[in-house]
Amino acid sequence: MPQIRKPEKKEQIKEAAARLFRDKGYSATSMRDLAEAVSLKASSLYNHISSKEEILREICFENAHRFRSGMEEVEQAQSTAMAKVEALLRLHVRTAMEDATSVTAFNDEWRHLNEPFLSEFKSLRRDYEQRFRLILLAGMEEGEFRQMDPNIALYTLFSSVRWVYDWFQPGRPLTAANVEDELTAFILQALRP
Amino acid sequence: MPQIRKPEKKEQIKEAAARLFRDKGYSATSMRDLAEAVSLKASSLYNHISSKEEILREICFENAHRFRSGMEEVEQAQSTAMAKVEALLRLHVRTAMEDATSVTAFNDEWRHLNEPFLSEFKSLRRDYEQRFRLILLAGMEEGEFRQMDPNIALYTLFSSVRWVYDWFQPGRPLTAANVEDELTAFILQALRP
Repeated sequence: MPQIRKPEKKEQIKEAAARLFRDKGYSATSMRDLAEAVSLKASSLYNHISSKEEILREICFENAHRFRSGMEEVEQAQSTAMAKVEALLRLHVRTAMEDATSVTAFNDEWRHLNEPFLSEFKSLRRDYEQRFRLILLAGMEEGEFRQMDPNIALYTLFSSVRWVYDWFQPGRPLTAANVEDELTAFILQALRP
Repeated sequence: MPQIRKPEKKEQIKEAAARLFRDKGYSATSMRDLAEAVSLKASSLYNHISSKEEILREICFENAHRFRSGMEEVEQAQSTAMAKVEALLRLHVRTAMEDATSVTAFNDEWRHLNEPFLSEFKSLRRDYEQRFRLILLAGMEEGEFRQMDPNIALYTLFSSVRWVYDWFQPGRPLTAANVEDELTAFILQALRP
């Protein structure tokens, strides 16, 4: 049996922070809570990370860059708008299932970033949304998608995967592959003419 | 011009609390924050409400009862599964647009309820979900909906309206009626065979 590699401490800290931010809220989470969650003394935690602001920043920007890379890959592919949206949707669903930190960036905690990071993060989000919107509009123009307000399509699509993080646990009773396939099919059908 | 009726102070307090819980998190919101948000002295706030726990409880149960009433009305109607799901979806979208407190009950803040209220709230949620699931299953059985995992359909449908509260502002550029119609049509198309 291949051995499962233990995630690096830093990754553990980020995952734990993302869960604490969700459960207690960012403001109410202390470095002490975080140290306890990863079984470190507060003093040792500072060897890995200087503040909770730093963790939030890393979580938000890592995820923003992950989605930007996904978008770049999709834009370079010679494929239909439908295939592009499918690839991006699969990225959203897979990310929500595999990485607890992603939900922090997707959802509300990014609001706690300080400037200039807040503006930079918002600008990355706007850019991602705009590129996604252009794919939707191209698909409507080509008749691959039905005519609808592109913002409603876009935000509904982003929102539709939000439950996955709260609810999904592999194998009970659905596998990750089931959820990815069914959720992707659901949204693609909603877009068709 | 008809005068717009000023909402009761209690309603204002609940709306302000719902926004603070979302922005700062429930744990980090103090009665002082809440008093400031509704321009009251902390001492006057206590004439309206005894604790933030009480507000959270009222918000959660009012919304749970609103959705239960909607479900009862829908169940009693002699209509197709498609018409039932449409009526419930419209209730979800309209509620998200009209009432800022609803998002608190929909989303994460209910986790902060104390017992026995937490268990009671979870049981109301489970009951609502189960009744909604039965409508979806009946629709699949009748061939009105395509065959899919009912949980994926259910949670995707609930999640899909979550953006409305964050993003929607009447008339810029979409009206509430536009959003309700388009979002409902989007999800209904996803369910069709």
